[in-house]
Amino acid sequence: MSIAATVLDRIQRVTQLPKVSLHEPTFGGNELKYVTECIETGWVSSVGEYVNRFERELAAYTGAAHAVVVSNGTSGLQVMLELVGVRRDDEVLVPALSFVATANAVRHCGAWPHFVDSDIRSLGMDVSKLDAYLREVGEIRVDGCYNRRTGRRIAAVVPMHTFGHPVDMPALMSLAERHRLEVVEDAAESLGSWIGDRHTGTFGRCAMLSFNGNKIVTTGGGGAIITNDAVLAKRAKHLTTTAKQPHAWAFFHDEVAYNFRMPNLNAAMGCAQLERIGSFLEAKRLLALRYAEAFRDVPEVSLFLERTGTKVNYWLQTLLLAPEVASQRDEILAVTNAAGQMTRPVWELLYTLPMYGACERMTTPVADDLARRIINVPSSPQLIAGVV
Amino acid sequence: MSIAATVLDRIQRVTQLPKVSLHEPTFGGNELKYVTECIETGWVSSVGEYVNRFERELAAYTGAAHAVVVSNGTSGLQVMLELVGVRRDDEVLVPALSFVATANAVRHCGAWPHFVDSDIRSLGMDVSKLDAYLREVGEIRVDGCYNRRTGRRIAAVVPMHTFGHPVDMPALMSLAERHRLEVVEDAAESLGSWIGDRHTGTFGRCAMLSFNGNKIVTTGGGGAIITNDAVLAKRAKHLTTTAKQPHAWAFFHDEVAYNFRMPNLNAAMGCAQLERIGSFLEAKRLLALRYAEAFRDVPEVSLFLERTGTKVNYWLQTLLLAPEVASQRDEILAVTNAAGQMTRPVWELLYTLPMYGACERMTTPVADDLARRIINVPSSPQLIAGVV
Repeated sequence: MSIAATVLDRIQRVTQLPKVSLHEPTFGGNELKYVTECIETGWVSSVGEYVNRFERELAAYTGAAHAVVVSNGTSGLQVMLELVGVRRDDEVLVPALSFVATANAVRHCGAWPHFVDSDIRSLGMDVSKLDAYLREVGEIRVDGCYNRRTGRRIAAVVPMHTFGHPVDMPALMSLAERHRLEVVEDAAESLGSWIGDRHTGTFGRCAMLSFNGNKIVTTGGGGAIITNDAVLAKRAKHLTTTAKQPHAWAFFHDEVAYNFRMPNLNAAMGCAQLERIGSFLEAKRLLALRYAEAFRDVPEVSLFLERTGTKVNYWLQTLLLAPEVASQRDEILAVTNAAGQMTRPVWELLYTLPMYGACERMTTPVADDLARRIINVPSSPQLIAGVV
Repeated sequence: MSIAATVLDRIQRVTQLPKVSLHEPTFGGNELKYVTECIETGWVSSVGEYVNRFERELAAYTGAAHAVVVSNGTSGLQVMLELVGVRRDDEVLVPALSFVATANAVRHCGAWPHFVDSDIRSLGMDVSKLDAYLREVGEIRVDGCYNRRTGRRIAAVVPMHTFGHPVDMPALMSLAERHRLEVVEDAAESLGSWIGDRHTGTFGRCAMLSFNGNKIVTTGGGGAIITNDAVLAKRAKHLTTTAKQPHAWAFFHDEVAYNFRMPNLNAAMGCAQLERIGSFLEAKRLLALRYAEAFRDVPEVSLFLERTGTKVNYWLQTLLLAPEVASQRDEILAVTNAAGQMTRPVWELLYTLPMYGACERMTTPVADDLARRIINVPSSPQLIAGVV
């Protein structure tokens, strides 16, 4: 049997469905009830009790002191970068292997992404390699770290927790202190992922969550900023809601700001989804075990599992092909998708995209290698009957 | 009776309610049905049939060839300005009297708002005054109109149809041709407003609609770009949806782009609302007549009515105080709001806000005068029983 046929067979054994998506939301809880309440009361827009409640409950769930919901993760990341002081023509360290939004948010601030290699143990930034690189390339000046090669300030670093697997945040935080970098976490994929007893996104100055339709908890479209910094949270709320000063009637806005609000209608759905995250996580963990079991006798393919000391949300289940079969990745993708089992490669490396080809980067052999070997397989929690 | 007491009395005669908002949505049609369908089928996010349908129906309603729905009006305006060629440090002509988003979208492109006076007949830009001003200040060069005073290019003009009252677009279009300006209409407030048989927003190169919770048709939060330019429409869709190239599985994005998508959940609500726009407009027109009638014997206060040749959506009903009672505006606002009849002044003049104080502007005596004399009064269509 070809490796593609074997992969298809093993996926089918797990999903037991003729046609299955990569990740579909499930709305078996209070979603319809809460959304109906919004429509019946007329509170569908940018002010409403579900907005406040979703913010409170996100803070409580992650252990962050504050949460500010926004229209989507990309916009949330842009605002956070501005708030931590990223300025036009600064550089921001981002993973070479990430969804394009991580780099786009940097450009939306007028700054430049600077790409970092991956750690094979986390799929995210390689912290010790970044440390060595900054010792060579970075120069500490009075207002931060500068890139000796470009003369630009390196203002911040954005670790992204790939498919829910956490970057080594304790190590990254101490690196950031040494090199005087702000840390903004891209936790779009890691709601429900922990390092020890700390939720991802609570290590850096602030973090972004995403509730896009394919995420572990969805609001249709949306995101949130979480932080322990009360001043930053207040500024984030102000900047994402047109910077209007409170007044009985006057429309006085005190700075250039955004309309990045999450409507109450979408927040209502988020509240209902968040109530169910425990069962989603349980199902996704069982699904990971089933894939691991199904591929146990296939030496060329392994399931990427959580490392010791972390608890992973298994947002997208991730196969890692052995190097000797990496050349068959596209055949595996073609065969599985043709058979109705939806699979996806990881993102194109960001520095290979036309708009980011000229950006600064370290050598990225691990990211380059992972980009050829990762395949995501069907990951919806409802694939596990009886849990969700 | 004081003028404030008189205004309160007349508003109460029209609303016949002890407590009433400025503008509330009403969801008596298919809103719950369509939203329920999204939740039951799982199609809540950025791809879905309601997104396509809402775009088709907005195009059909306005007579524009294309519509692209987006996360909100501000973001839509930013993208349109980029698409028509507004670049960093260009200037863009915007009304001094507008919601802050009009100027913010210009700044989000890195360009500078340049403020224009109002026309007392439309509440929007004074086209003939702008023409005279540009003859003095503007200089035509090979790549467009330049501001002699600043040396910057004046790339575009953004007329905004205040409370649904159309700017004189035929005159503005010929001005724009003379002075080589791109025209992007801010039609956030004018869905359902027409000049002759042409819908507002179909005169310029493109236009933005808004579906915020207080608008005539709401999606909770959201907006749309409408245009007759097929290339611009295609580019707008691409730029607002992360610029991903179509591919069976690869994540190849070909330019720096945005996630400004409208979720299918919100588009579903928009489809249901748009089905009912005819009755909303009918009710709002009757409401205007009732206010006009109620204030007929109050010489110091008149209702701002549509001018000949236009059909106005009466999004927000607008009182104009006579100059001799303008000084009592805040007392009128205080008395009416304290009595549960929600009223609002017009926006603060944009050049008086701290972030726009240093921007270029012509003298704005009419806008300055209007800013002191406008009061918006309760405007929900459901104030007219039996129509909505």
